[in-house]
Amino acid sequence: MAVDINNIRKNLEFIGSSFNSGIKGFNRLAFSQEEKDAINWLEQELKDHDISVRRDAVGNLFARIGPDDAPIHAFGSHLDTVAQGGLFDGALGVITGLECLLKLKTYQPRNTAYELVCFVGEEVNPLGGTFGSRLIAGLVDVDGLDEEVLDKLGMTKEQLKEAAGTLSDYDGFLELHIEQGTVLENNGNKTGIVTSIAGIVRHHITVIGEAGHSGTMPMADRRDALVMASEIIQHINQEANKFTDGTVATVGQLEVEPNLATVIPGRVTFTFEVRSGDRGTLDMFPEQVTAWVKKNYDVEIIQGVVKPTHPMSRKFINAAETAGKTLGLPTMKLMSGANHDTNTLAPFMDTGMIFVPSEKGISHNPLENSEWEYIENAANIMLETLKNFDVQSDERAISD
Amino acid sequence: MAVDINNIRKNLEFIGSSFNSGIKGFNRLAFSQEEKDAINWLEQELKDHDISVRRDAVGNLFARIGPDDAPIHAFGSHLDTVAQGGLFDGALGVITGLECLLKLKTYQPRNTAYELVCFVGEEVNPLGGTFGSRLIAGLVDVDGLDEEVLDKLGMTKEQLKEAAGTLSDYDGFLELHIEQGTVLENNGNKTGIVTSIAGIVRHHITVIGEAGHSGTMPMADRRDALVMASEIIQHINQEANKFTDGTVATVGQLEVEPNLATVIPGRVTFTFEVRSGDRGTLDMFPEQVTAWVKKNYDVEIIQGVVKPTHPMSRKFINAAETAGKTLGLPTMKLMSGANHDTNTLAPFMDTGMIFVPSEKGISHNPLENSEWEYIENAANIMLETLKNFDVQSDERAISD
Repeated sequence: MAVDINNIRKNLEFIGSSFNSGIKGFNRLAFSQEEKDAINWLEQELKDHDISVRRDAVGNLFARIGPDDAPIHAFGSHLDTVAQGGLFDGALGVITGLECLLKLKTYQPRNTAYELVCFVGEEVNPLGGTFGSRLIAGLVDVDGLDEEVLDKLGMTKEQLKEAAGTLSDYDGFLELHIEQGTVLENNGNKTGIVTSIAGIVRHHITVIGEAGHSGTMPMADRRDALVMASEIIQHINQEANKFTDGTVATVGQLEVEPNLATVIPGRVTFTFEVRSGDRGTLDMFPEQVTAWVKKNYDVEIIQGVVKPTHPMSRKFINAAETAGKTLGLPTMKLMSGANHDTNTLAPFMDTGMIFVPSEKGISHNPLENSEWEYIENAANIMLETLKNFDVQSDERAISD
Repeated sequence: MAVDINNIRKNLEFIGSSFNSGIKGFNRLAFSQEEKDAINWLEQELKDHDISVRRDAVGNLFARIGPDDAPIHAFGSHLDTVAQGGLFDGALGVITGLECLLKLKTYQPRNTAYELVCFVGEEVNPLGGTFGSRLIAGLVDVDGLDEEVLDKLGMTKEQLKEAAGTLSDYDGFLELHIEQGTVLENNGNKTGIVTSIAGIVRHHITVIGEAGHSGTMPMADRRDALVMASEIIQHINQEANKFTDGTVATVGQLEVEPNLATVIPGRVTFTFEVRSGDRGTLDMFPEQVTAWVKKNYDVEIIQGVVKPTHPMSRKFINAAETAGKTLGLPTMKLMSGANHDTNTLAPFMDTGMIFVPSEKGISHNPLENSEWEYIENAANIMLETLKNFDVQSDERAISD
């Protein structure tokens, strides 16, 4: 039993070309008509294959096959994109999931039920990313949401409350996704098996200097906040480069005040983000850097987002490794630096992720690309992994 | 003959408190009603002292005393401020000029005419700074100005053309101004005699990196435009610190793209400004830095503003030094890093500037301050300098 890569390619390209509100790249924004249309298309595809589909009040899609009373192994991803996004992010996990579900249906599982899930609103949106999964996991404070924002999105609190906290009692959740990084490409384009989804610790650092006239203030008397911020950015980059465990640190957002060519910067505010799959590093590294910054500069530091590191389950890591060996497809373990719906579900069940190599690591970009060969490898490892949960206690395993 | 510092203080504080559109600091923006009201007040003051006043079509004020056919020594500054500006920038030169004119009137000059000038729109404004002086010097392309902008400012092209190119045939122009830097404060608060107004060479540098997901792109594979920009900022700052001739370099404005906490900066654009009183340095230093940047980084560099360095006339430098010695008031020579109306006039006549020490160099800021004692010193050196132009061929010099 194997996936048909042509089905995956045909469906993925169909979604990309059919549901797109923009000209540059792929534009199926969270909660947009294009996202709805794409999920409706998926629903129809499933129904055409005689698979029953459930939609919840927010639009999440669930399609189950297999015995009614068996443990459920779910898998899937999302169909929304960022603005000017790529063909693969999210959609690949749903479309590969569809292919797996159809293949598993022909296989007729006896001991395991399988459920394809398509979450809505995974990408950055006014209600926060991974919204669909967070809502059903009961992690969204619906009453605290802005009525005006909901109104613009065509949603009501009643509707959201209907879907809130309805996460099924899955035995596990597996998500196939593009890596969006260069680790796999740098390692022979093996299929990736995610060991943990990196936690995030973000700080907002304001460097306080003294604004002054760019022509009249001698160099020696300046307290140039941008020169100081540059030193801090260098320090962060140098320290982060010392890690060999995939830990990364980024200064992605920076604002200069007053930001005029003729005024020495008086204040510079920037984000300092650390992501690590290692809980100890995530605790320690941001702490060390901010302590060094406080010691050497006049700064205000506010802690922002803190998301814990979520290790993936041994069950999925082992199953995927075994599947790779069985199929003769090389795999490698790596950390996921990006957040995914799987991260939402990790505290509630066994979770795993399979990564497809990304060309040059480019993502959230029309140039996002993954070779069909590598997609086929990952999809077959996924299918094998899922099937084995059923096979394990099934005599058919011997003759299969 | 000496100035009365109490007059200067009283008038300056009157203007500051009477004509202010804001709450924080002093707000007499270029072309605002407050600027007009302040100049109208000055006109009335002059008339009350029986001094005839001319206003041109754009609002510049000219008040002359002395023999009709004598060479004219002009002096003055501007009354507009930046938003949330200080008490002294510009206004001090006009109000000290008023005091000098009144004292020179009582002195009854025989060989020299004196003219107080108050220019409009010297500070940053939609028509460009030093507008009043540039207009009468014939340096403004009136036809090229935006009709909509003029409309908002309540001006017409006809009106501007009436004032354009009407600069009088002065023998020289002298401007007293606060230093807006820390050179004088660091040198015992001597009165400053400006040797040249620094030229400016500005470049807009765009560092081209590669945007990427802050969680998925390994440190080693990143081409982080902000990390690279930080290195360039460090280089600029280190190199500029090597000069001992007052040359300064500033990165004042910086924009990150896409400027999101979760995205590795793909492009960073910033201004690189050099100001130097030395023409050779101004030619060479920006050239050296941009060559180094091009060699080491993937960049786009666009040359922006280029303003030549304008040396002040020996006539004014010597006259002010002599005046200081005569009065027993210490002076020191320095470069002006800031632009002034005097810079506009420098190519057309002998020009000079006298600088008053600025507390901590703070300017364009409500905290801008200069001690009245230092203002008195500078004002007396200015009065003595101006008077000497008349005395030089006057027998009264012997008994004065």
